[in-house]
Amino acid sequence: MRALHYVSARNVNPVDLEPQAPPPGQVQVRVAYAGLCGTDLHIFHGDMDARVQHPLVFGHEMSGVVTALGTGVEGWAEGDRVTVMPLAWDGTCPACLAGNEHICQNLDFIGIDSPGALQELWNVPAGTLVRLPQDLPLREGALVEPVAVAVHDVRRSELAAGDKAVVIGGGPIGVLIASVARHVGAEVVVIEPDAGRRASIDELGFRTLDPTAVDQTAAVEEWTQGAGADVVFEVSGAAAAVRGMTALAKVRGTIVVVAIHSQPREIDLQRVFWRELRLLGARVYQRQDFETAVDLLAGGRAIPTDALITDVVPLERTGDAFATLEAGQALKLLVAVGGDR
Amino acid sequence: MRALHYVSARNVNPVDLEPQAPPPGQVQVRVAYAGLCGTDLHIFHGDMDARVQHPLVFGHEMSGVVTALGTGVEGWAEGDRVTVMPLAWDGTCPACLAGNEHICQNLDFIGIDSPGALQELWNVPAGTLVRLPQDLPLREGALVEPVAVAVHDVRRSELAAGDKAVVIGGGPIGVLIASVARHVGAEVVVIEPDAGRRASIDELGFRTLDPTAVDQTAAVEEWTQGAGADVVFEVSGAAAAVRGMTALAKVRGTIVVVAIHSQPREIDLQRVFWRELRLLGARVYQRQDFETAVDLLAGGRAIPTDALITDVVPLERTGDAFATLEAGQALKLLVAVGGDR
Repeated sequence: MRALHYVSARNVNPVDLEPQAPPPGQVQVRVAYAGLCGTDLHIFHGDMDARVQHPLVFGHEMSGVVTALGTGVEGWAEGDRVTVMPLAWDGTCPACLAGNEHICQNLDFIGIDSPGALQELWNVPAGTLVRLPQDLPLREGALVEPVAVAVHDVRRSELAAGDKAVVIGGGPIGVLIASVARHVGAEVVVIEPDAGRRASIDELGFRTLDPTAVDQTAAVEEWTQGAGADVVFEVSGAAAAVRGMTALAKVRGTIVVVAIHSQPREIDLQRVFWRELRLLGARVYQRQDFETAVDLLAGGRAIPTDALITDVVPLERTGDAFATLEAGQALKLLVAVGGDR
Repeated sequence: MRALHYVSARNVNPVDLEPQAPPPGQVQVRVAYAGLCGTDLHIFHGDMDARVQHPLVFGHEMSGVVTALGTGVEGWAEGDRVTVMPLAWDGTCPACLAGNEHICQNLDFIGIDSPGALQELWNVPAGTLVRLPQDLPLREGALVEPVAVAVHDVRRSELAAGDKAVVIGGGPIGVLIASVARHVGAEVVVIEPDAGRRASIDELGFRTLDPTAVDQTAAVEEWTQGAGADVVFEVSGAAAAVRGMTALAKVRGTIVVVAIHSQPREIDLQRVFWRELRLLGARVYQRQDFETAVDLLAGGRAIPTDALITDVVPLERTGDAFATLEAGQALKLLVAVGGDR
């Protein structure tokens, strides 16, 4: 079967691997589509070489069809359409024992810490499978994982209908958070410096702000009649965004840290104190987020899938796809591992 | 009557003022004791000259006895023992309308933004009065305000019996937070670099850690069997404390920002994200915190008042008292404005 190996920085290699029968408790899935995300780009850049094995079959956003069951697996059958919630926890660490398995202190993020979806036949623990409805195209099924991230972020923020939310950063996750926030009944402003991205986001019906052209604090103050935003999502990863985000939230407002900040960031703690702000980290998702994400995609209106999926490329062109992502010329790129066949 | 004027940086001046009858809706209180806090020290240093009037009668921690009622005041009588919750809000800003009057966007902090307790006869709005029980010494009544700060911080953290809490900074508010945390049934470690302060805190029965001598992250990790603390209170105001605090909290743990950080601080947002931490600002108090604080002081065991009150000085020696505070040689100093007469 065809698979893609990450070999070393900027070096990915299509290879032929021998398919393996699923071990006990696992299920073999024929991968249809796999999405490329920012973490995959970090792997491609070599930034995660200390964490990942070499070579690594990466990929953790996907859709597919069950092809074989390991012994002891119940509730699944050949032909079932599925996606995978790519987390495996130890069940014994303090975080797991407190019910936070998704942030297990020894988490195995499948596709990063163990082999992922960029292979035609992928064996995964049966417990990671999430059912896709028959009428959801498999292309769109590959978006369940990033949609689940956005669902988790919005759920964690406790955003409510009628609230006003600011999303800092208009990349794929920012657009998904904005979409989920709108679905729960909030009004949304997306702050994004890139004009091309802003134009696309405008087309989706969101307000946008160019932080390089306007005083974003004054603009949000005016939009909220002097109160400040109920919720601010920091999705940009930029130092300047962190410096500015605390001024955007209302008294007792919530700021959700979604982006990865690999360096310590300067933050206005005086404002955190003065307005009794609440700053929340939000990482990956829980099963209910995956299930909500499937529902949102199946509903067909909440998530702008056509605007999000910039292109679908064959496995052999994954390296080129990373170049397109690096150039900021795409939101979501899918790899047709096996496609719809 | 005797009063104390803040005139300019490091210049306070005892003066004789003409007492005023209480205006409608206000109550005249004969001030017994007034406590000096970090904010008063900031005023004394001239750091708040842009905010305060000159001259200013400052002071906002106090106890006293009602001496006269303005027209329209009900529910109070001459001779009632009281303290003052020194907040006046506009009731019309977005924060007030959302029920967060204590962080009104136009808050008048009485004793900072308007005249305070360092005068023998002080007129305050009737709504700011909080009743003190007959058997609570007025010396201890002057501690209600800082105890209410600690009660608010602990309440906001949702600390529960059996939890493990870390308090960074062993000044008066740190000791009060540790005391309230212990009262709710939590185990407490206080991180404090000053050996003298650590010795006093040890005597109160708390564990202490010297962050300059031990690896505080490893020590908290060991103390919590690898989980991390349920709640971390940042009370030090130090940049190094902010850099280190995120490593002390458990997965989904809470960090409460109590201290004032006048400069932007570097924070490890990656850890906030990775562990889904919750960072909360906590400012002043609400009426229920004042009432809980009175109960705790009246109960006589939760708050180590003798250890906290380093000395009581006459009004004329307030300038010297600030010098003692600056030198770190005292926890709480009280000014005997009228004393127990």
